[in-house]
Order: sequence, then structure tokens, then C-alpha cells
Amino acid sequence: MGSGNEAISEAQIIELLAKIFQSTDPRIEVGIGDDAAVVKSSGDQTSRQVITTDMAVEGVHFNKQWSSAFDIGRKVTAANLADLLAMGAIPDYLVVAISLTGSEEISWINELADGIAYEAKLGGASVIGGDLARGQSVTISMTAIGTTAHPILRNGAKVGDSIYLSSLTGWSAAGLRLLENGVDPKSVPEVKAVSEFCAPSIDYGLDFSKATSMCDISDAILIQAEQMALESGVAFSFEMKEIAGASEFEELSTVAKSLDVDVFEFIFGGGEDHVLLATGKSLPGIHIGEVVAGSGLKGLEMKKAPVTWRHFN
Amino acid sequence: MGSGNEAISEAQIIELLAKIFQSTDPRIEVGIGDDAAVVKSSGDQTSRQVITTDMAVEGVHFNKQWSSAFDIGRKVTAANLADLLAMGAIPDYLVVAISLTGSEEISWINELADGIAYEAKLGGASVIGGDLARGQSVTISMTAIGTTAHPILRNGAKVGDSIYLSSLTGWSAAGLRLLENGVDPKSVPEVKAVSEFCAPSIDYGLDFSKATSMCDISDAILIQAEQMALESGVAFSFEMKEIAGASEFEELSTVAKSLDVDVFEFIFGGGEDHVLLATGKSLPGIHIGEVVAGSGLKGLEMKKAPVTWRHFN
Repeated sequence: MGSGNEAISEAQIIELLAKIFQSTDPRIEVGIGDDAAVVKSSGDQTSRQVITTDMAVEGVHFNKQWSSAFDIGRKVTAANLADLLAMGAIPDYLVVAISLTGSEEISWINELADGIAYEAKLGGASVIGGDLARGQSVTISMTAIGTTAHPILRNGAKVGDSIYLSSLTGWSAAGLRLLENGVDPKSVPEVKAVSEFCAPSIDYGLDFSKATSMCDISDAILIQAEQMALESGVAFSFEMKEIAGASEFEELSTVAKSLDVDVFEFIFGGGEDHVLLATGKSLPGIHIGEVVAGSGLKGLEMKKAPVTWRHFN
Repeated sequence: MGSGNEAISEAQIIELLAKIFQSTDPRIEVGIGDDAAVVKSSGDQTSRQVITTDMAVEGVHFNKQWSSAFDIGRKVTAANLADLLAMGAIPDYLVVAISLTGSEEISWINELADGIAYEAKLGGASVIGGDLARGQSVTISMTAIGTTAHPILRNGAKVGDSIYLSSLTGWSAAGLRLLENGVDPKSVPEVKAVSEFCAPSIDYGLDFSKATSMCDISDAILIQAEQMALESGVAFSFEMKEIAGASEFEELSTVAKSLDVDVFEFIFGGGEDHVLLATGKSLPGIHIGEVVAGSGLKGLEMKKAPVTWRHFN
């Protein structure tokens, strides 16, 4: 724990906060710890409200040099809406708080809002409120509110379930690597890895309502699958051949090869794709393995353990 | 509007955002523009959900030198809950997104969370979720959700209503001036102006449910009363003698005198007290005037027009 400059991990802080913010309100079904909170709707016993919040900071989560304001708006919105999808919820509302430095052009702010509005519309949500603040950098904080009759948590995976991805992960991490290597994003807008890094394309229409457990990949499959397996008391067994058979696998492999990276490093260690990782039977997307008895992750075959690239978020 | 370094006003940005985020969702009763948004609750036709968000930035809205982490947590929470009160709503839930620089001690984070939890409990709300991010400074963004059967907007003031303040405004502005003048906040914790600046004390128990229009004073009465009068199509006529008869007026006058400031400058031009300004009949708090036919503000007698001190928020 320590003090001063001793590093405090995010997990330690969250554990502390979860303890301090413990509540006995009987309407709260899920508090801190899953993709979003779940509360009972007033008056309607079958419906639950799902609430999530996400903060994105310039220079940490996005970068004005690499991403257009429109894409930044889309990305932050997608990250929030994906948290609702990951709970099996239908997005309803968004509120957005933004700090600006004061040096932004009105056209940049306009594009940012356009990107938020565009992605919100794709996800079926309305922006109903917000706040503007002055800050040293651009920070965008969003809260998304949705509804579901059956929230899907991280702890419901059962032996005999299959494991699915709503689409292939790794594109965003590959895009980041390309940009870090000096690729000019404006010269290659057609490269899927770059465009996915700048603003992930989420398919809001897929039906994962029958999933037994689910989360969206904001950090890395390696981290989040392990968390789901642990919370569900099962093991996740991946089938690398199934993954290698996914329609976009070859395309991603070519990008990975050009970067001299094992493609599975991007797929399992990359984050911010906001793809859904779900367990259940006959779900949409890519079948990538089975839920089996035991604990932890199985079936992973990689040249080396990927360095998961996660922000402090 | 302009581009480059030409100043863009907050009002211009909000107007732009309100246009971009326009929605046709029939469940939305109040969108951007009041203290909070109002949406119909699913299943329950008599109940409305009220949602507001607020962002506080280190160095702009709070200052680690002047305020303890506990007070910072309280203040940001109070600002959010006051927006719910200002809509006539009962607070239910809070979600909190915080960016940390990484150099904060765990005890500081603990105190911040304690302050949030303390104020949330006073207001009857539970913190149900959050997000942690890395940033160059501490930014706290909060979303508060409450319920009401009868939202109280800014546009309902009627000729014949009286005007009330839930308590005297100006303390926070006076506290800020004291601190700017070099008063050490730790040496004078007993001074009400300083303590109100560091964390306003809100009376969550007052019943303003019969108000015809209401808002909380985050900016200044001068700004916000004018807004309410304009939106209601009436004039607000203040009675300075009534204000001067308020129980705390003498105490605030003494502080103002010591700072060589007209006390009414603090009362009408100060902000961040999060006191409720309401119109109606026989409301609690301090009676400060009458709603009359016409437009704008009347009855103000000050030595000079106060410089309203508002943040870019």
C-alpha cells in the first residue's frame, strides 16, 4: 500500500473504493466491480437499469496528433456503450463532461461532438446532458445508462458453455503499434488496424442476450478472460485453430508480420477493441474455445507471453 | 465563433452541443439546458428520473493547498447532489470517474473517497460505480441520478410568487477571497467562509417540492436569477432589506468589511454555494423578493456591479 512515490496499483485503489462506497441500498443489484452497475427500476420489477462511467484523458487514451476529433468522440462513446452491451443492456442515455484547455477551435469541438453523436446514434443512445470545464488537457468523461431484464455478469460461465468473441480482437493494438512506428494515420485511413485504434467499429446489432457471462475487451483477453474464469469458478480453454480460422485472422496476421509481432500477442494481449467476450451456447461471433472444469486459461500457444498494454484506467 | 485563439464562450459551445445532441426520444422530458436532464422511468408513469453530471478540475475548481482531500470529495459531491435538489429530485445514485497523476498517497485517495461517501450519505445517495484514469492533474467527474414525480424547472416562476434562498449565499466567494489573500485555511477551520468554500454545507432536508421554479447557485444569483426570469417570462424583484435581515447577514457583513468588499457583491456575485434559489409560496429558507411582471432583475442596490466569479464550467 505504502505512501509517497511507492506505486499504488489500480486494483488496490478499486478495492479501497469498493469498501468505502459499500451500500446497503436493496435496489442495487451490482455495485462496483463489473462492467457497469445494475439497479432495479422504480415501479418496474422486471426491468433493471445499467449504469457505467468512463474517463478518457488526452495523451493517455487518445491523442490529437493521431486521431481526429470525430474519432476521439466516437471512441470514448463506443467504450462506454460497450460496457452496457457487456451487461446485456440496451443503451438509453449518455451524459458527457468535457474539460477543454480553451485553445481548441470551435470546429474541433464541433467534430468531437459530432463523433459522440454519431456513435451514440449507432448504439441507440441519446446525449441528454453534460458539463464543460476548463482544464490543462482535454478530458472526456461519460456516463452511459441502459436497461435490461437480465443483466449478464462476469461470473456466470458454466462448464459446457462455449466461448465467443463478437469479432476478432487485436486490431486496436496493431494500430497503436503502427502509429508508434511513425505511420501517418492520415496517409493510411484505409488500414483497418489504424481505423480501429482511432475508433473501434462496434456491431450494436449482435444478439448476446443468451450469454451466461460477458465482458467487453477494454484491457486484454488474457486479463479479462482470467477474471471471468476466476469469478465463475471455471477454466477457459482456448482453441487457437478456431481463432486462426476467423475471417479477419489472415489480414491481421499480415499486419502483425509486418511489425514482427506474433499475431496472438495482439489478439490476446491487445486492448481497446471493445469486442465482447462471452460464454454460452450458439452465440453469434467467433467461436474461440470451451468453458471447462478447473481454473485459469488453457490452450494458449504463443511464442512468448504478450505484454498486455493497459492504461491506468 | 471564430477559430484559433479567438475566445469561444461557454454559452456558444453549449448552444452548439445542444444542437448536435438534439434527440427525438419521447422519453426525454428535459434535455441539455437545466440543472439536470429528466427522463421518464420505464414502467412507472408517475416517476421521472433526473440525471446530472459535473466535472471538477484541480487548480480550477479545487486546490490541494487550500482544501483537504475530504473537503474536495465533499464539495464535488455536493455540487452534483445540489443539481438534483434544484430539480426537486431525491438523490439515488452516483458514479465517479477520477483521474490521478500517480503521485497521490493512498491516504489522500482514501480521504477523497471518504469525503465523497460522507456527502453522498448526507444526501441519501449511493456510489455505485466509477472509473480510474491516469492524468496530468486530478479531475473528478461525477454523475448523479435521482427521482421525482414533479421536476421543478427554471421556467416556472409566476407573477405573485415569492423568491427564496435555502440559505444565505456569498460565503464561498468570501472564503475564496480570504484564501486568495493568504489566509491559511488550516489556521482558521472555524471560519465559516473558509469552510463553506472548501465544502459547502447543504441542508438536504428542506422541502422545496412546492417551488414553481428552482436552480442551485453554482455561478451567481445575478446570472442565474436573470436566466430564470428570462425563461419564465417575468422579472425578479429583490428586497435588499429582507436579505439584510437574514440571520447570517451580519456575520457575512463582518467578513466582507474585513475584505473591503460590499457584502451584496458576495451575495449576488458569488458562486459555488449550491444554495437553492426558488420561487413559489411559503417555501422554507430566506424570503428575498417577489416575482413581478416585466423582465430582468429589479431592486438591486449595490455600490457597484459585482464581478461575478465564475469558472469556465
